[in-house]
Order: sequence, then C-alpha cells, then structure tokens
Amino acid sequence: MFPSGTSDFKTLCPSICGYSETIVVDEEFVLSVPENLDHAGIAPVLCAGITTWSPLRHWNVGKDSKVAGVGLGGLVHMAIKPAHVLGAHVTLFSRSTNKIDDAKGLGADEVIISADEAQMEKAMGRFDLILDTAPYAHDINPYVGTLTTNGTLVVFGYLGPLDPMLETVPLIMGRKSVAGSLIGGIAETQELLDFCGKHNITSDVEVINIQDINNSYERRLKSDVKYRFVIDMKSLKS
Amino acid sequence: MFPSGTSDFKTLCPSICGYSETIVVDEEFVLSVPENLDHAGIAPVLCAGITTWSPLRHWNVGKDSKVAGVGLGGLVHMAIKPAHVLGAHVTLFSRSTNKIDDAKGLGADEVIISADEAQMEKAMGRFDLILDTAPYAHDINPYVGTLTTNGTLVVFGYLGPLDPMLETVPLIMGRKSVAGSLIGGIAETQELLDFCGKHNITSDVEVINIQDINNSYERRLKSDVKYRFVIDMKSLKS
Repeated sequence: MFPSGTSDFKTLCPSICGYSETIVVDEEFVLSVPENLDHAGIAPVLCAGITTWSPLRHWNVGKDSKVAGVGLGGLVHMAIKPAHVLGAHVTLFSRSTNKIDDAKGLGADEVIISADEAQMEKAMGRFDLILDTAPYAHDINPYVGTLTTNGTLVVFGYLGPLDPMLETVPLIMGRKSVAGSLIGGIAETQELLDFCGKHNITSDVEVINIQDINNSYERRLKSDVKYRFVIDMKSLKS
Repeated sequence: MFPSGTSDFKTLCPSICGYSETIVVDEEFVLSVPENLDHAGIAPVLCAGITTWSPLRHWNVGKDSKVAGVGLGGLVHMAIKPAHVLGAHVTLFSRSTNKIDDAKGLGADEVIISADEAQMEKAMGRFDLILDTAPYAHDINPYVGTLTTNGTLVVFGYLGPLDPMLETVPLIMGRKSVAGSLIGGIAETQELLDFCGKHNITSDVEVINIQDINNSYERRLKSDVKYRFVIDMKSLKS
C-alpha cells in the first residue's frame, strides 16, 4: 500500500510504509493521489485516514449522523475532518478543555469534557457512532451510555481485555454494539484519496528530516505533535 | 402486546402478558394470529419468538447466512426454527451431547460441543451471527472467535458485566461486534406471526393448568421443559 505520488514522504508508521527509497509494488496495490493535495499531508491519510474512514463508511455516516471521537490525536483528527465533510454532527470527547479550539478548528461541532459528569449525563443516548482510539485500558461504559438505539462504539487503539468489564444491560436495552476496526482495503483507500482530493482534505502534519527521528519519537510519546510527524525521505541523502 | 386470538393461553412470562381473563388494549397493540396455528404454541412466539426474530431480521439473516445459538432453551429453540426456514445454515453450541438430536429435529444443521476444544478450534471464523441467550455470566470470547469478519454476537439473557473480560483484539482484527438485543416492536411481531402462519411454525410447548404453576416453576428452574410452559387460562375457573 504505497502511493505512487508520495514516495518522498513517510509517516512514523514503518510497519506499513517502511523507509525504502524505492519499492516494487504490484499494480493492484498502487494508489493514485489527487494532484491538488500536498504530498506530506496525504501520507498519514494512508494509515490514520483509512483507519477512521473505513468505519465511517461501514456504519453509513452521512448528514443525519451523530458521530463522536474519543481523544484528539492523529486518528481522531482524521475522523473529524471527513465526518464533518460527510455532513455529520461531529463531537469530540476530551478529558480536558485544552483541545476545544483545535477540535472546532478541525470541524467538530461540539466538545464534551468526559471528566465532567454533568456533561456526560447530558450526552446520554445521543450518538450513532463513537470512534474510540484511546490506546490504553479505559472504561468504555460511560461512552456506551451516550450511544443512541442501534448505535455502535468502535475500538481501534486498545489491544487487551475491556477493563473495567463491559456492562451488557445498556447493550441489550438499546440494541447497541461494541465493535472493533483495523484499517481498510485498497479500494476503500482509493475512495478516501478521491474524497480528500475533492474536498481538499489532508492531515495536519509536521515534516521532519530523518535525522530528527529520535527526538520526534520522544515528542510523539508525549503526544507533542499536531497531528502526525512525516519524514521527508530526501533528507536521507543530506 | 396481547394477541386477539390467544386469550386463553399465557406463557410463563407474566411481566409481558399478565394473567387477566380480559384486557382492554388500544387497537394499535392488537396482533392478528394466523388461523392455521395452534394457539397454545403461538403464545411464546410473542415473547421468545420475537426476541430472537428481531435480531435475525436486524442482521439480515437469509440463505447465505451462518447463524448459531448458544444453549438450547426456550429462546434458542425459537431461533433455530425461523432461521432454518429463512434458509440459513444453523448451528447450536451446546455444552453436552444430550441435545444433538433435539436440535437437529428443530432444524439445526450442526451441533458444536462448546466444551470440546478441537470442535471450537474448527469453528473459528465461521458465523455471521451468534445469538447468545445464556442467562448467567460466561466467557463469550471463545464464541467471538467463531465469528467471521463483520460478524456479530448478540447477548440477550445475561444482565451484568462481561466476566471474563471481553478481548478487543479479535474484534479489531475482524471488525466483529458484540451487541445486545431485547424484544421487538408490534410491526415486527406481526411480521413474525405472518411468517409463522406461512411456514407453520409454533413453539414446542407443554400446556399446563394454572393449578400446576408452582410445580412447573420448579421444573423450569431445572430446565425441565421443552421448551415453554403455557398456561391454559380456562383452568382458572375449574
């Protein structure tokens, strides 16, 4: 899964892209990047972007949908942008008030502070789809409570047992679902690239030279990046 | 939710039906029972039947579907019959071999002994929809493993936290879902009654006099009923 037009830019996602200068790919796995888009900004679309796009499409998000993301990071920033363009009402759940302005700048209609019980109470039964990208063990039950009848909460980032345990009564009473999602296929990725081209969507990125990779990795661990580092591979030769 | 044609028969489900001799119901909540069906056998259709019918319809079960039920009781016996008629491949998960003949007689194509690791291993990744009606805490992770990509396991019976904890990796790797479901609406119940009439489906029941209710309750606690007790309300006057 390597775009023909972006070979100079790699996101910090070596498991997918690798750091090769050249690569031989079967033509079935080459994607076409719209010419109007910034190549550095499109690189994370092929990982974070398709990871959030696939569930937006699978669960039929459109202009009548209410979508929420849990935690503003590389994944959720690439959920807010397309969900907003798809016409959904977009909400960010955040633990702090620090990210309100950023979320609204990306296209969120609303930010709910998850640490505020009154705000969580008010959010009960509201969302069709919640994208929960938090990569650590956390209690998803409060978020399940904010799903509407037939709503789905999708986990992406946390690989482990749901601790605290998932309560079944809210699922049963509202035919709610807890699902998982990984990435997307080639056809869906091309669909996203075309959508990005049409609506001029790219990731917010910070382009670095490959010599800065260790420092960037340390900053990444502190979530000190808006929202993805992208390596300019030309710097490898400098 | 009281059928106009079955007022002499009540299942052991007083929370829905009550035990009144007569009842006044808004016409919007009266159902039409097909004339060809045995009234005693149709009574549980209005509780167990619609409870399993609703998810069969919501998750689009048809002739290419692979459906499984967990544990053969009042609910699952009313999942096997319609799922079989809908054309699905129907499997029962059972802890023992005692129920193989009964399950196949009801329309199951296959019985998997859930205590047999080799059988469970062979069942990995197979089912589109699993109806888990077990009313006690149990490990659903082995059943999630038997779902196919995009498959859904639906819990009905167990009201409490999922213990052992639900693992997220199998959900994420196969876009699988764990959902809940309760009962169904009036329109969907009428649809089921019409379906039962067309295909001559009723519940397997044991009709009792109301004087036998305490004994039947004790037998029910031991799962000693195939598959629902139905009270003949005429016995109230005898």
